[in-house]
Amino acid sequence: MMKQITRTRTDPEETRSRILEVAENFFRSIGYQKTSVADIAAEVGMSPANVYRFFPSKGAINECICGRIVEEVAAIAFSIARTNAPAPEKLSRLLTSIHEHNKATLIKEKRTHEMVAAAMQENWSIIKAHIERMTTILEGIIREGVEAGDFDVDDPAEASRSVKRAFMTFMHPQMIEHCILHGEDTEEGLREQIRFILKGLGKTG
Amino acid sequence: MMKQITRTRTDPEETRSRILEVAENFFRSIGYQKTSVADIAAEVGMSPANVYRFFPSKGAINECICGRIVEEVAAIAFSIARTNAPAPEKLSRLLTSIHEHNKATLIKEKRTHEMVAAAMQENWSIIKAHIERMTTILEGIIREGVEAGDFDVDDPAEASRSVKRAFMTFMHPQMIEHCILHGEDTEEGLREQIRFILKGLGKTG
Repeated sequence: MMKQITRTRTDPEETRSRILEVAENFFRSIGYQKTSVADIAAEVGMSPANVYRFFPSKGAINECICGRIVEEVAAIAFSIARTNAPAPEKLSRLLTSIHEHNKATLIKEKRTHEMVAAAMQENWSIIKAHIERMTTILEGIIREGVEAGDFDVDDPAEASRSVKRAFMTFMHPQMIEHCILHGEDTEEGLREQIRFILKGLGKTG
Repeated sequence: MMKQITRTRTDPEETRSRILEVAENFFRSIGYQKTSVADIAAEVGMSPANVYRFFPSKGAINECICGRIVEEVAAIAFSIARTNAPAPEKLSRLLTSIHEHNKATLIKEKRTHEMVAAAMQENWSIIKAHIERMTTILEGIIREGVEAGDFDVDDPAEASRSVKRAFMTFMHPQMIEHCILHGEDTEEGLREQIRFILKGLGKTG
């Protein structure tokens, strides 16, 4: 009879999670740029080569972490889109909430900004997918508004792209930073822009 | 009788111009960041200390040069604003022309982009003044459109700020670069956004 081999096997999913957790702590404490894969490996208690078996690069680790960050933003948008409010009110609340969330994330957490900025450089696909999802949520609200007679729009998909662009200064991390830096991030400006967007959608009344 | 003193005095304005000309050549050939005041001084044939009598810093030299760059943009806007076309057509032509000019300046002349980016960091006042002037030109066109019954806007100053923000992705150097990089700078996108802006201004017809 063969001797039974007892090996302590760690679940690969657990190791992945552990790497992500340690990496996120490093990114949030010393910053994305200053963290190396060697730092992460040492803290997890594995060799860098072993970490690379799970993630091909530091950028790939950041991609996963930023995936969760943008997931939070999408969750806010979905929760507003699901309410029963009229479309113009939903749109206004959604834009305001996303702006406030992004601004809070940037101002309070400079490290998050650095991580997202890195992802915009190195992992554009994840940011692009996020923007597309957000645009789809906008499109859904615009369609509802058209059906209810609140909006007058021929092509809701086109309109959602225009709304996204028209609101860029209040959503894009660099633009928000730029506006705060130059004292141009005002409540009044935000309200003006939302009013303009609602008018562009041909809100009746 | 006193002996007449003959001194070759150089006109300070001429020296200033010469410094600007030499500096611009350096900025456009080796780049703003890599050029030092010592490089400029050596080429003009003066000491760096002497250059500093005319300009307190390299940033101050760049401010003057960028002043001329934004002057070109304003000249394009003014020339369109002065035509007799209907306001919606003027606005559409102005936005398209500014986008195309800024894009050409960026793509063809990376060095200009670097100079303007440096001015946005170091000499915000000149860029701010430029944005305000452009917004004033937009406001004038919107007022004309309201008077002619082409636009339906309560507050043309507010509307001009909204138009500026709604068109940011097609005007801001970093945003243009970002869109080109990600293949999102399309003719169709530009047309969509101008259509949306005209609708936001309540264009009749």
